Amino acid sequence: MRNSNLAVSQNSTVPLTGIAVRRQCRSGAFDGHTAGLAPGYVQGNLAILPKDWAEDFLRFCQANPKPCPLLGVSDPGKYELPKLGADLDIRADLPGYRVWKNGEIAGEPRDLLSIWRDDLVSFVIGCSFSFEEALLQSGVPVRHIERSTNVPMYRTNISTQAAGRFHGPMVVSMRPLKPHDAIRAIQITTRLPAVHGAPVHLGFPGEIGIQDLAKPDYGDPVPVEAGELPVFWACGVTPQAAIAAARPPFAITHSPGKMLVTDLKNTELALF
Amino acid sequence: MRNSNLAVSQNSTVPLTGIAVRRQCRSGAFDGHTAGLAPGYVQGNLAILPKDWAEDFLRFCQANPKPCPLLGVSDPGKYELPKLGADLDIRADLPGYRVWKNGEIAGEPRDLLSIWRDDLVSFVIGCSFSFEEALLQSGVPVRHIERSTNVPMYRTNISTQAAGRFHGPMVVSMRPLKPHDAIRAIQITTRLPAVHGAPVHLGFPGEIGIQDLAKPDYGDPVPVEAGELPVFWACGVTPQAAIAAARPPFAITHSPGKMLVTDLKNTELALF
Repeated sequence: MRNSNLAVSQNSTVPLTGIAVRRQCRSGAFDGHTAGLAPGYVQGNLAILPKDWAEDFLRFCQANPKPCPLLGVSDPGKYELPKLGADLDIRADLPGYRVWKNGEIAGEPRDLLSIWRDDLVSFVIGCSFSFEEALLQSGVPVRHIERSTNVPMYRTNISTQAAGRFHGPMVVSMRPLKPHDAIRAIQITTRLPAVHGAPVHLGFPGEIGIQDLAKPDYGDPVPVEAGELPVFWACGVTPQAAIAAARPPFAITHSPGKMLVTDLKNTELALF
Repeated sequence: MRNSNLAVSQNSTVPLTGIAVRRQCRSGAFDGHTAGLAPGYVQGNLAILPKDWAEDFLRFCQANPKPCPLLGVSDPGKYELPKLGADLDIRADLPGYRVWKNGEIAGEPRDLLSIWRDDLVSFVIGCSFSFEEALLQSGVPVRHIERSTNVPMYRTNISTQAAGRFHGPMVVSMRPLKPHDAIRAIQITTRLPAVHGAPVHLGFPGEIGIQDLAKPDYGDPVPVEAGELPVFWACGVTPQAAIAAARPPFAITHSPGKMLVTDLKNTELALF
């Protein structure tokens, strides 16, 4: 682990760009969480699978676009993703990685240089950071950001559509909102299908298999106040849960909270 | 009153057009409710005010576009509205009218030919029939249509923005929907600001001053089932309530349920 856990620009009044964050990851200067870094730039979840598993996984993402909206897929063995970033090297440009063997976490390397293989296919999947930025810019408050905690996430009774060996429950994230803000949030996120799009549910957690909002399966709980509706979005943890369930002999994901920061702008993702 | 209360086309397998309905109103062949007539054509609420009140009313509609979305405004004394319909005569092309004196109902004439004045300005205001058609076409069920009753409407604690002598509470209509359908309905009606647009509230009737959903102020109650959210849209009854409150010496509206059927198509109203 490096000492640094905060990326900083040379001139601290200028926000970082996507490529600046990737450069600091690659050089070893930064290995922290990417939330709030490089405002305006799209961040993505990463999943890397060997080619013989990647074909099923691609179909899984295609069949489940709300939890698994694909921003980019590499050619086998290629560590570039030129549509997502200039001079991007998926092996080193994230702050941290997680290696999976047979569905179990087998390591948290700082880069993939020594374990890269010619059969690996990289999938970059949209992330809620993009729509949370859009919510905040529209004046819709986001409770877990106000509290500086992780968003609460829950396994649901909504099944993903299975594809080959990949299957499992949809994981959702929850944000409590007043009705007026919930309506606005539905409008805003409808415009952003590349980053999970509109909510999948609001109002009745039990109907989607969530027994206790205070006990999320991932992340931290947040209070739901009187007069607020819990609003649920499909979550990018869903594909990680599918990888854990499918138990491929080898897979790589980003380390939680340590996303790929791309050169795409969040504003470019809006449908209209 | 005429004997007929159902408009019919010469060939009953062909749905009526907007102009065909207006012709039957003008000839006296039809004086019934317009719900379900001329599918695909925009229907509108009517309000007619003398010029010295019309200026305030225009500002009232402009300031309150969700309950009072203006589809068209006539020149003073003109009974044509060419953008809304070919050869349209606002004095005779609706199935029935209501005359108001000092905020009280003073009559329900079949046409306005004998009472027309050169200072009258006609306002045509979007109506929920247009968005209900869009909901049904997208597979979102509409409870009061299934039950063949009028939509339940409620006076709220949401104030309209006053303009001159016009003021009063926003009136809303309510449709109970399952969460998935509520999300879809928000998306669909967001596209249709000319006919009330997105809901103004969902989930907590008490927060907008509605104590008992079973006792609507206008229309008929509908059951809200377990697992359904009550969803509230701004309603075209709001301007009638504002006229009743402002008590102009003379005003005319359509008779309830007897709307102006225009030549516009509902599909033309969608923003995107």
